[in-house]
Amino acid sequence: MEYTPFPSWPDTTPRLIAVAAGREAADMVIRGGIWVNVHSREALPDHDVAIAAGRVAFVGPDASYCIGPETQVIEADGRYMIPGLCDAHMHIESGMLTPAEFARAVIPHGTTSMFTDPHEIANVLGLEGVRLMHDEALMQPVNIFTQMPSCAPSAPGLETTGYEITAEDVAEAMSWPGIIGLGEMMNFPGVIHSDPKMLAEIAATQRAGKTVGGHYASPDLGSDFAAYVAGGPADDHEGTCEDDAIARVRQGMRSMMRLGSAWYDVESQITAVTEKGLDPRNFILCTDDCHSGTLINDGHMNRVVRHAISCGCDPLVALQMATINTATHFGLEREIGSITPGRRADIILSSDLTSLPIETVIARGQVVAENGTVTVDCPHLDWPAKARNTVHLGHELSSTDFEITAPAGANRVMANVIGVVENQAPTRALKSELPIIEGLVEGEGEVCQIALVERHRATGGVTNAFVSGFGYQGKMAMASTVAHDSHHMIVVGTDREQMALAANRLAEVGGGITIFRDGEELALVELPIAGLMSDNPAAEVAAKAEKMVEAMKACGCELNNAYMQHSLLALVVIPELRISDLGLVDVRTFEKIDLLEPLA
Amino acid sequence: MEYTPFPSWPDTTPRLIAVAAGREAADMVIRGGIWVNVHSREALPDHDVAIAAGRVAFVGPDASYCIGPETQVIEADGRYMIPGLCDAHMHIESGMLTPAEFARAVIPHGTTSMFTDPHEIANVLGLEGVRLMHDEALMQPVNIFTQMPSCAPSAPGLETTGYEITAEDVAEAMSWPGIIGLGEMMNFPGVIHSDPKMLAEIAATQRAGKTVGGHYASPDLGSDFAAYVAGGPADDHEGTCEDDAIARVRQGMRSMMRLGSAWYDVESQITAVTEKGLDPRNFILCTDDCHSGTLINDGHMNRVVRHAISCGCDPLVALQMATINTATHFGLEREIGSITPGRRADIILSSDLTSLPIETVIARGQVVAENGTVTVDCPHLDWPAKARNTVHLGHELSSTDFEITAPAGANRVMANVIGVVENQAPTRALKSELPIIEGLVEGEGEVCQIALVERHRATGGVTNAFVSGFGYQGKMAMASTVAHDSHHMIVVGTDREQMALAANRLAEVGGGITIFRDGEELALVELPIAGLMSDNPAAEVAAKAEKMVEAMKACGCELNNAYMQHSLLALVVIPELRISDLGLVDVRTFEKIDLLEPLA
Repeated sequence: MEYTPFPSWPDTTPRLIAVAAGREAADMVIRGGIWVNVHSREALPDHDVAIAAGRVAFVGPDASYCIGPETQVIEADGRYMIPGLCDAHMHIESGMLTPAEFARAVIPHGTTSMFTDPHEIANVLGLEGVRLMHDEALMQPVNIFTQMPSCAPSAPGLETTGYEITAEDVAEAMSWPGIIGLGEMMNFPGVIHSDPKMLAEIAATQRAGKTVGGHYASPDLGSDFAAYVAGGPADDHEGTCEDDAIARVRQGMRSMMRLGSAWYDVESQITAVTEKGLDPRNFILCTDDCHSGTLINDGHMNRVVRHAISCGCDPLVALQMATINTATHFGLEREIGSITPGRRADIILSSDLTSLPIETVIARGQVVAENGTVTVDCPHLDWPAKARNTVHLGHELSSTDFEITAPAGANRVMANVIGVVENQAPTRALKSELPIIEGLVEGEGEVCQIALVERHRATGGVTNAFVSGFGYQGKMAMASTVAHDSHHMIVVGTDREQMALAANRLAEVGGGITIFRDGEELALVELPIAGLMSDNPAAEVAAKAEKMVEAMKACGCELNNAYMQHSLLALVVIPELRISDLGLVDVRTFEKIDLLEPLA
Repeated sequence: MEYTPFPSWPDTTPRLIAVAAGREAADMVIRGGIWVNVHSREALPDHDVAIAAGRVAFVGPDASYCIGPETQVIEADGRYMIPGLCDAHMHIESGMLTPAEFARAVIPHGTTSMFTDPHEIANVLGLEGVRLMHDEALMQPVNIFTQMPSCAPSAPGLETTGYEITAEDVAEAMSWPGIIGLGEMMNFPGVIHSDPKMLAEIAATQRAGKTVGGHYASPDLGSDFAAYVAGGPADDHEGTCEDDAIARVRQGMRSMMRLGSAWYDVESQITAVTEKGLDPRNFILCTDDCHSGTLINDGHMNRVVRHAISCGCDPLVALQMATINTATHFGLEREIGSITPGRRADIILSSDLTSLPIETVIARGQVVAENGTVTVDCPHLDWPAKARNTVHLGHELSSTDFEITAPAGANRVMANVIGVVENQAPTRALKSELPIIEGLVEGEGEVCQIALVERHRATGGVTNAFVSGFGYQGKMAMASTVAHDSHHMIVVGTDREQMALAANRLAEVGGGITIFRDGEELALVELPIAGLMSDNPAAEVAAKAEKMVEAMKACGCELNNAYMQHSLLALVVIPELRISDLGLVDVRTFEKIDLLEPLA
């Protein structure tokens, strides 16, 4: 461990008391602000805040008695003093950034606490990967709590991940200092059917007194939902409509409403509060997944709070949903989430409660950002070679690895084809009649090849299949080692030579995303950490990702969120048809199916 | 330990899931009630509740699929289904009842969870006494959580208790199964001045992840209050006005508003919610102290909720203040406080939400009371001889033990006299010129004698002094081993022979309260457990206590709450003048003073 634990409240109590009582000077005093009080739900003008040892020591109308010669005084000048924002559920890997660089990207947006589920790295590096994320998280100047991933693999028996997470892993992780609970229990059929492994993970978390994250991705609010709730998950971010939100809160869960880069679930659910008048305390805002471009261009939790306000939510209620509600949910209400004595001094100064400009950000008592610029270091872990060397292909690939041999004697053949649907996560299971040329089945028209290249155990395995909907033209291929959730390598291309070039290129750079056309690399996003993340700044990663999207367009792809579609093609828990290292999977039946069928 | 732990949620998850999913039958189904949902703050008609293994398995419009041949079906018939009520802070000893008998008295009133601070027994029997209370609490069919007493003695250096509670005791108790936190930290000057023992107790509690109870009995909301808050207490029940309640909530504490037998602090504080519109989530109802007569005649938490409603509070908000708010405060929101899956099935059936008749009470899935009658056993601990034999006088007392020798040569003398003031806890420090007869100072008029008889260590010590305000006439004496907080024996009388009779009588019966007049015992309340509690039913104790009050009247005492005045005469933390085993104490200066002064 390369971090110094942040001293606890009891570690610093004598100093806090001494400052509040006027016997010692504060480290920092913020003067003359409007105290956004998320306990009482009030905005109280003309308040001062005194800070010592990184925590709030005093809040009151006049903290001048706490000011000594060494005290840093910040003039709020009538601005709002808002508790640092909390993201209640998110995946750092979605930003393609390490925890340090993710923190650096979101701090200027006022996010000072994150509840992160390193589910992606768990699939690549197992418990060891989770620990690395956890350790870098604890090194940061803001609060990054780790939710222990619950479901790796996501679809046992239908895919092979780099590592599996076991119930014993979960129990072990519960003793780590930064673990706050169990990450989204997405195997909801497992819970409903009392899968012993899932229940053991939940039990280990509950027995440790920690929070079980939910993920009930089904519109069925009947007995399946009831059984899932009885299983123990304490929150859910998969609701998409008002009924979902209401059902979850009534059943004693917390409704997490998300606005991510591609999730828009706040507007459709927040009416439970704004129109139906439910007690807002059990509603929480989160992002779930944010791309680096969103962080650079649009913001983070400030974007979500602004959005909630624009949906008609009272600003103070919206702020509660991103501060104290979250803190209470995770048992941290005396540690974060409000500007009150004893809590970590995580404070935003903002001149407007609706547009929410983030002018100054203070975390743990130090200024961490001013007007959009980070003013502190976000230390990097010394990531071990094992984490930087995760693309194991077994051998250099060639075009022959991507050949799909036709049945003997046929001229044409019927293929099961993954049909990408714009703006939808589910794919369609299509059938296409394809030509056979020199004994090989070839894509045609909209149908091109897709391959899942095994990269965890160097088996040399390549699963070949067909996909349609990207609109690629010419001789091109695109490859990515971000391939939810098992994160093998997905290569999509119109030409087997380009596919081999792209795959070998990712092996060379240790993972990421690349596009080749006519032998030339059009774009590259290096993601050397687990093949998922970069330790470069978010702006650089966002710029490369933008270039990558442009290259996809240049190759003829006009889909919205085309890259996300690419990265989800191996997600064998969402219907209808997906690819895995074990073959083509019909997710309607959870069974493998053959790629080719004889013509009828 | 003589109890079977109630199985945890993870212990019973497979069964709860099976019932919710329809694979197994429930143990109990309540049909057709109005679901009082304290999470969403709604009353939802036409709901069923299915219960298994003592916990809620399902709540929905139709639980008929959970009914099997063995399922107990209860028809709610359109009545309200309300979560069992929680008393957030209370002292069982105040009822002069053991935990078992206290539980038996309050169960018909719908109280299913209590947060109890056995502060009184801690003064008599130390950690061992706390453990006995804790153990009997865990044997009950309802939830009795124990707050580890923090301040025994209450006034170090000014009194000698039977035992002291140390910081090490606190740390040890935090590992006991029924300990929920630290009991009221009433040594607020100690916290403000960073007394190492007080801070060590708080730290041990915080490090165990438990709740630090507060007790800030001062109207000063300035830097003293700020320093106390910075010290860590998470709640406070000593507020008496709206400003007190608001200040506590704004500073991140929870405001506990109490209605006890002699506390009336709800009406004056609840306006913070009903008029000022503060978010109600941080307001909690409690009783603090209830006499057995109150429990028999008026109720318990149902009385408090009714009172809050009569003060203008929305019934659903008032119920939140006695259910989920309390549960959340103590980190138990997934265990008690609402009727939702996984929680203990603690449910009241009531046909009106305002008058709140308590018709059926279910606790942990079994019917525990019907229409005011308890239907279950409340098991008694086998209290050890040490706990039943706590009145150690050293020798049989005689009238000479109560003689106050006059200074040589004087005719009259000036005495410092404790002045009892009706309806007030503080006493007044009076001076009276008293006659000397045969070398002894004698009471005169309103002034009679008071003695504190040491009873913990059989020292034979008797502290003699004078008190006025009771109005006693004739030859009488009243003695009690309930003598907050050190619980020695207080004897008040007009005649030394009667005083000796009364004191010896309590030694004979093992403690309690007695009144003698002209050599005859007028009333006796036996309190054989620690000299504080009876293990007889509340109705019997209440009847004897009533008779005792009548006897006080018969002796000329017309004071309201005269017995409480008697029992508080040794409370050396409340001004102005008190008696302790160390002498007469001026609580304005926290110094001992002489009983007699020469005439000016």
